[in-house]
Amino acid sequence: MQAGQNERANKQLILKQVPEGISGPEDFEVREVPLTEPGEGELLIEAHYLGVDAALRLITRDSDEFLFRVKPGDLIHGSMAGRVIVSNNADFSVGDYVLGSLGVQNYAVSDGVGLERCDVSQAPLGAWLGGFGVSGLTAYFAITEECKPQPGQTVLINGAAGAVGSIAGQICRLAGARVIGLTSSAEKCRWLTDELGYDEAINYRDADWYQQLEQAAPERLDVIFDNVGGELLDQSLKLIGMRGVVLLCGSTSQYTEAEMKGPANYIWLGTMRARLQGFVIFDYAERYPEARTRMARWIDSGALKIPAWEVAGDIDAFPTAYQQMYEGKNLGKTLVRLPAAEAS
Amino acid sequence: MQAGQNERANKQLILKQVPEGISGPEDFEVREVPLTEPGEGELLIEAHYLGVDAALRLITRDSDEFLFRVKPGDLIHGSMAGRVIVSNNADFSVGDYVLGSLGVQNYAVSDGVGLERCDVSQAPLGAWLGGFGVSGLTAYFAITEECKPQPGQTVLINGAAGAVGSIAGQICRLAGARVIGLTSSAEKCRWLTDELGYDEAINYRDADWYQQLEQAAPERLDVIFDNVGGELLDQSLKLIGMRGVVLLCGSTSQYTEAEMKGPANYIWLGTMRARLQGFVIFDYAERYPEARTRMARWIDSGALKIPAWEVAGDIDAFPTAYQQMYEGKNLGKTLVRLPAAEAS
Repeated sequence: MQAGQNERANKQLILKQVPEGISGPEDFEVREVPLTEPGEGELLIEAHYLGVDAALRLITRDSDEFLFRVKPGDLIHGSMAGRVIVSNNADFSVGDYVLGSLGVQNYAVSDGVGLERCDVSQAPLGAWLGGFGVSGLTAYFAITEECKPQPGQTVLINGAAGAVGSIAGQICRLAGARVIGLTSSAEKCRWLTDELGYDEAINYRDADWYQQLEQAAPERLDVIFDNVGGELLDQSLKLIGMRGVVLLCGSTSQYTEAEMKGPANYIWLGTMRARLQGFVIFDYAERYPEARTRMARWIDSGALKIPAWEVAGDIDAFPTAYQQMYEGKNLGKTLVRLPAAEAS
Repeated sequence: MQAGQNERANKQLILKQVPEGISGPEDFEVREVPLTEPGEGELLIEAHYLGVDAALRLITRDSDEFLFRVKPGDLIHGSMAGRVIVSNNADFSVGDYVLGSLGVQNYAVSDGVGLERCDVSQAPLGAWLGGFGVSGLTAYFAITEECKPQPGQTVLINGAAGAVGSIAGQICRLAGARVIGLTSSAEKCRWLTDELGYDEAINYRDADWYQQLEQAAPERLDVIFDNVGGELLDQSLKLIGMRGVVLLCGSTSQYTEAEMKGPANYIWLGTMRARLQGFVIFDYAERYPEARTRMARWIDSGALKIPAWEVAGDIDAFPTAYQQMYEGKNLGKTLVRLPAAEAS
């Protein structure tokens, strides 16, 4: 045990009320609790980064339809990357960097189960919560194992500048495909083409975005990688190509809707012998190290960028970062960088 | 040329107006035209049976979104089975039974391209337009090549008593799967279980049909074979099982809607790593003979029934049969049996 930690308080973010529409600061409150001491076999982690995930909106809905749920009064569920500061567990030492699903708080006690060790020589700690973490691995396995774009094929990334989409588009380019990104501003379009190497980027807030997409994909779309759902998925389905793959990696546009809508243009799947397919990254858990080795090589050679939108602040910075992500402010993964990260 | 055929008139069914909702007799009119003489290389076919296809409703919509369209004033598109009564084509002889996409009329002239010869020793002529024709082949290839149900798996057939569904369910039973059918009346439920060997059948007009389905599929659904779309597809998606297949073979419930709706529960595909997949029977055209040989053996042994709902009448019987099919009156394929069939 280090001296003095009992004097520190742990700030936790709590759900105050079930959100409607885009979730804002009014839906959350910060609670200060005494720091819990780790028991036998446990360790204490000091958070440096918090991952801001779109899927949080889904589990805060007033619905039992989802497998996991955060109700008013509960600690906000979320991923944390930080440093071990006390360890009563033989598998972890003080100073180790780890990540886990440990909630939106400054400190967490863990028995080590489900924790992942972060090798910060491969990628910086923040990247382990984003493009080098589950978001990046999702993009990697979704593209290389499920979508399998071929050289010369055309891919559309819906939600192209987001945590997953920004990596997915780059991996499609590495596979030799032509990549079109749909995103929410002209600035993000420029970023996609200039920084990430997208062949084309379209602002879906333009009134004629669908016509722009039709022109950008004269031979239709071999792959649609969809994070967004709603209108973007529905309209883009009209352009799916023969035996095309539409991969579902989330439906963020629908998480804030009181009633979710389905894509009426799914009937194009019939005509085109195409498929709309689900995907869960955890099925690939045993292959994460292999993917990271390959991604680290791409990062080293400059072929892959791991973009992150880091908001510096304490626990109370989380709700605003989360709201702004839903408003489309982020380029890549949204992270809260906590004071402990600055100090280390 | 046979004597006297020039004296005969040819009755044709014409689209009078773009239908709204379920199409009724008021949307059609019968036109009498002189019988056309077949030219060099052509043949004249006398229709015995007309196939009544749900997809007609889709191509009579006031929309250019579909690849083929029937507009007011056009001959109604449809499949015909009949007998060659004049032949100037070396490939066909007078007396041959043939089928083709020849429209809703008493007689058709053809150059032989796209005609299929019907071996009435394998199955009766009417069956060649239904369970032994494209509807049955659709069921056969969709189940054996795309859905591939395994012994012990559970399959749901949406539109179980229709032309395709009635065959699809039986083929799933032959593959050793447990088969649940969704259909539109208690009478049809009894028919599915008593006549076609379905394990369970549920009337989707019951208020608690979804609860009945949940109870009938405690281990979820490995395959959903969907002809219907709309509410049935949407609700049943909540029960799709791990790595399940949802095969799209039409969306009849949507053809009559001014605005088509998509299945909001498509997000279950994500959680369940399942896929919603399109299918077009014509991709299997070269394998029709192989399928028919196998199906003919099943028919001979009593393992497969080819149900048809035959409405006796002339061309003007078609609109009513078509309307009644949409109202759910048919058991199996809907056919109009023309006076020429009675005479032969």
